[in-house]
Amino acid sequence: MTRRVDLNADLGEGFGPWEMGDDAALMEVITSANIACGFHAGDPCVMAHAMAVARAKNVQIGAHPGFADLQGFGRREIQMSPSELRPMLQYQIGAAQALAKAAGGAVGHVKLHGALSNMAARDLALARCCFEAVLDIAPDMVLLVQAETAMHHAAKELGCAYASEIYADRGYGEDGTLLPRAQPGAVLHDPDMVVARVVDMLRESAIITAKGTRLATDIDSVCLHGDSPGAVAMAQALAGRLPGAGIAIKGFSERRLT
Amino acid sequence: MTRRVDLNADLGEGFGPWEMGDDAALMEVITSANIACGFHAGDPCVMAHAMAVARAKNVQIGAHPGFADLQGFGRREIQMSPSELRPMLQYQIGAAQALAKAAGGAVGHVKLHGALSNMAARDLALARCCFEAVLDIAPDMVLLVQAETAMHHAAKELGCAYASEIYADRGYGEDGTLLPRAQPGAVLHDPDMVVARVVDMLRESAIITAKGTRLATDIDSVCLHGDSPGAVAMAQALAGRLPGAGIAIKGFSERRLT
Amino acid sequence: MTRRVDLNADLGEGFGPWEMGDDAALMEVITSANIACGFHAGDPCVMAHAMAVARAKNVQIGAHPGFADLQGFGRREIQMSPSELRPMLQYQIGAAQALAKAAGGAVGHVKLHGALSNMAARDLALARCCFEAVLDIAPDMVLLVQAETAMHHAAKELGCAYASEIYADRGYGEDGTLLPRAQPGAVLHDPDMVVARVVDMLRESAIITAKGTRLATDIDSVCLHGDSPGAVAMAQALAGRLPGAGIAIKGFSERRLT
Amino acid sequence: MTRRVDLNADLGEGFGPWEMGDDAALMEVITSANIACGFHAGDPCVMAHAMAVARAKNVQIGAHPGFADLQGFGRREIQMSPSELRPMLQYQIGAAQALAKAAGGAVGHVKLHGALSNMAARDLALARCCFEAVLDIAPDMVLLVQAETAMHHAAKELGCAYASEIYADRGYGEDGTLLPRAQPGAVLHDPDMVVARVVDMLRESAIITAKGTRLATDIDSVCLHGDSPGAVAMAQALAGRLPGAGIAIKGFSERRLT
Repeated sequence: MTRRVDLNADLGEGFGPWEMGDDAALMEVITSANIACGFHAGDPCVMAHAMAVARAKNVQIGAHPGFADLQGFGRREIQMSPSELRPMLQYQIGAAQALAKAAGGAVGHVKLHGALSNMAARDLALARCCFEAVLDIAPDMVLLVQAETAMHHAAKELGCAYASEIYADRGYGEDGTLLPRAQPGAVLHDPDMVVARVVDMLRESAIITAKGTRLATDIDSVCLHGDSPGAVAMAQALAGRLPGAGIAIKGFSERRLT
Repeated sequence: MTRRVDLNADLGEGFGPWEMGDDAALMEVITSANIACGFHAGDPCVMAHAMAVARAKNVQIGAHPGFADLQGFGRREIQMSPSELRPMLQYQIGAAQALAKAAGGAVGHVKLHGALSNMAARDLALARCCFEAVLDIAPDMVLLVQAETAMHHAAKELGCAYASEIYADRGYGEDGTLLPRAQPGAVLHDPDMVVARVVDMLRESAIITAKGTRLATDIDSVCLHGDSPGAVAMAQALAGRLPGAGIAIKGFSERRLT
Repeated sequence: MTRRVDLNADLGEGFGPWEMGDDAALMEVITSANIACGFHAGDPCVMAHAMAVARAKNVQIGAHPGFADLQGFGRREIQMSPSELRPMLQYQIGAAQALAKAAGGAVGHVKLHGALSNMAARDLALARCCFEAVLDIAPDMVLLVQAETAMHHAAKELGCAYASEIYADRGYGEDGTLLPRAQPGAVLHDPDMVVARVVDMLRESAIITAKGTRLATDIDSVCLHGDSPGAVAMAQALAGRLPGAGIAIKGFSERRLT
Repeated sequence: MTRRVDLNADLGEGFGPWEMGDDAALMEVITSANIACGFHAGDPCVMAHAMAVARAKNVQIGAHPGFADLQGFGRREIQMSPSELRPMLQYQIGAAQALAKAAGGAVGHVKLHGALSNMAARDLALARCCFEAVLDIAPDMVLLVQAETAMHHAAKELGCAYASEIYADRGYGEDGTLLPRAQPGAVLHDPDMVVARVVDMLRESAIITAKGTRLATDIDSVCLHGDSPGAVAMAQALAGRLPGAGIAIKGFSERRLT
C-alpha cells in the first residue's frame, strides 16, 4: 500500500516593504500554501504575489486568517466574541478568495494562524465557531487542523472536509499538544532526526511524543517552516527523502477527505 | 412610457464603537446600498450587520471600496500605483462578497468611495485600472459610476454592466463635475427644490447645471445621503414623491444595463 | 472640615470622522479629563481638539492609554508581555504630552483604559509594570487608579503620586470590584440615588457595595460618563449637588497626594 | 582649518516581527540616527530598541516622522491639510521623546520621512507648517533638512536650529533636487566614487550635480543608507576614509547651528 502526505507551510507573511521567509524556496517543496490574509501579515500586494507564485508552482492556495494584530504578528491572544470572530474570518477568507481568483486559482483550504489557532486547538466551542464561519461561505472548503486538538474534533463533529497535520520540527507532549517553545526539545533542529520522526509518524499513523508515546491519529499533512535558512534546508530535506521512504508527496486537495 | 430610477446611498460607515448615519431609515427608501469595506470605514461586524439589514429590506448589496485611511475616511488622495490599486480593490470586494454570502445575499454592484472616486472621475486610466480589477474577479458586476465623468467613459469602453448616477443634493458645474463644497450652491438643502430638480433631470435625461445648462446623459440611479437628519428627510421626500411624478423606484439590478 | 473631590471622565474618544460622547458638556462639569491617545480611540486631531477644550475650560489634561485595538475600542484583552507594554504606554503618553504642550498645557495624570485597566485592576505585577513605565518617563505624574484594586496597591507600593477613584454609576461587589454589566444593579440610572450614594461614599470614605457593606478607602475622584444623554445629565446633577452637600469639587492636581 | 561633518541614517525601520536594514552596523559609523516613529515604520518596541542602541553607541537620537501608511512605508503622497499635519507630527515626535527619555536620552533632531519629506522639499508652505509644528513643542529642536530645498529655505526663514544634508549615494539634478530613481545615475554604487564626490562637496561647500555643476550650500551632514549589504559597506567606506581626507566626523549636536 502506498502512503501519501501533503506538505504545507505558511507563506505570504511579508507586509508592505517587509519580507519574511523564503517563499520561493518553500514553494518548490510544498503542496499547500497557507497565505496570510492581511490582518496579522500579508497586504493585498503581498497576497497577490504569493498567490501568483502558488499558481505557477501548482501549489494549492489556502487562506491563513489571524487576529488583527500586525505588531504582534497574530501571536497575541485577543478576547473576541463569536459575533466578532465570525465576520472577521469571513472577511479575510473572502479577500483571499478574490485574490486567488485574480491569480487564476481558488482558495482550497483554510488554516487558522498563531494565537487564534492556539485558542481553537484547546477550545472546542471556539473551533466550531471559526469553522462554521468558514463553511457558511464555503461549504466545500477543506479545514487544515492540528491533529488530535479541539480543532480536529470540531471538524469531525461538523462532518466537513478536513485535513489533519503534524509539525515536522516541534516536540509533542503526552497529551498531543506542542511543547512550549521555552522547553527543551520543543523545537527540533536536526534534519536527519526530523525526517526519521516524520516517517515514523506517517507509517504508524500516530503522533510520537517527546517521551516516545504513540498517539494514534490520521495524518494528512506535515507543516514545514520557512522563516530561517535552517528551516528551508529542513523542508528541502524532508521533501527530498520522503519518497525514498515510500511516502508520496501529494496535496490533500486531490482526494476526498471525509 | 414609464420612467424608472434606482436610489443608492453609502451605508455601513461605522467602525467599531462608532456609528455614522441613519442606516435603518435610509434602508427603507433606497434600492441599492453601497457598503464600506473596512479600509476607510466599516469593520467586519459593521459590514455583516449592514448586509443583513440590506437583505431584510430587499436592498441590493454593493461594495464601496476606498483608500486604507480610517482617520481621513478615505477622503484624502493617496498616490498608489496600478499594481497596488488592483489587489487593494479585489481584497475589499472579496471581503464584501464573503460577508454578503454569509448574509444570504451577494454583491451586485461596486461603487468607488471618496478620494478614490474623485480621482477616477477625472482620470480615465485610473478608472479603467479600478474597473478592470473588479471585472477580473466578478465579470458580471455592475459598476455604479458618476454620470459623464471619466468613470462613465471607462465603463462604456470596457463594455461592462454599469449604472450611471447623479447626486440629488449637489450642484453641478458646466462641465458636469460637482461644484466644490466651499462654493455657493454646491450643496442643496431645500427638499422641494431637490425633488423638482431630480425629476427634471430624469425626465430630460440630462444633468442640469447650476447655471441651467442641460448635459444629456443616461441616468440610472440617484445618490442620496444619510449622514445628517436633514439628509434623511430629503431622501424620504425624494422617495415619497418620485412615484407621483411618474417615476418608478426600481433597483438597477432588475434589468440589463448594457 | 471641608470635604473635596475631583470629577473625572474619559474624553476625546472620537476617531477621524466619528464622534463619541458629549465632550463639550462634560468639560463644563469635570475637573480632570482622561484623553484617549490614539490606540483605542482618539487620533492626533481629536486629541489636539480635546486638549484645547480642556485648556480653555481649565480642566486638567490626563493621558488615557489603551490597547492598540480601534475596532474593539480597547475593551478586548490582549496578551502582551511587559517588554511590549512598557514602550506601548510610553509611546502613547509621550504623544499626549506633545499635544498637551502644543495646546499650552501639560499631561498631569494617567489613567489606563478599558481592558488594560481591567487587567491591571486584578493583576498587581501588570499594574506595577504599567505604572513603572509611566514614572520612568514622568516621575511626578499622578496615577489615577480604581480604589481598592491591584492598581491602588501598586501605586502605594511604588510610593508615587496617585489619586483613587470610585465610579458614580456602577454597582460594587463585596470585594470592591465592579459588578459585571450583565448583573442587576451593575449600572445605576437614577440620578438622585447616584448622587446620594456618592455623597455617602465621600463622607464615609468608603466604597458602599450593592449589599450595603462599607469598604474603607481613600476617595480622591469620582468617574463620570458622557457617552449617552442620560450620562451627561447625571454628571451635571452630581456636579450641581455636591457643593450643597458640603463637598467642594476640586481637581486633584491642586494638592500633593502622597 | 578643520572640516567636520555629521553622518546620519534612517534606523528603527522594522515593525513587529519584520526587520529592515542593519541598524547595528550603521550605528557603528553614524553620528545621528533618524528613528521611525510608528506611522510608516517602527512600533514602540522597535523604537525603544533603536533608541537604546543609539544611546549605547553615543549616536544622537532623532525623530523621523512620516505619513500613517505602513503598507506604503510612508512613500506614497497623502493629501493632508495643515490642521491634520501639525498634530500628526507632534504626536509622533512626542512619542519619540518619551521613548528616548526611557532610554536615558533625548530627541535632538527631527527629519521628515519619505513622501512627506519629498513634498516639503518642494513646497515651502508645507515645510513651514511641519517645522512650526515641531518647534511649537520643542523650540530648540534641530531640523535636519535636505540642502537647497524648500525645507532648507523654511528653516532659514524660521530662524531655528537646523542642519543641512546631502545624500552620499544619490545623483543631483541641475536644480539641486535628487534625480528620479528611474533615471541613469540616480543611485551611485561605486564606493570610491561616492567617497570622492562627498569629499569634494564638503571641501567646496557645494552640491555637485550629475553634470558637474557646483551649487553652493552649507553641508552639515551626509545621509547614508543601510537597507542593503552594499549600502552598509558604502557607509563604512565613507566613515573610514573621511578622516584621512581631513574631514572629522562629528555630530551636529555638538555645536550651535544658527
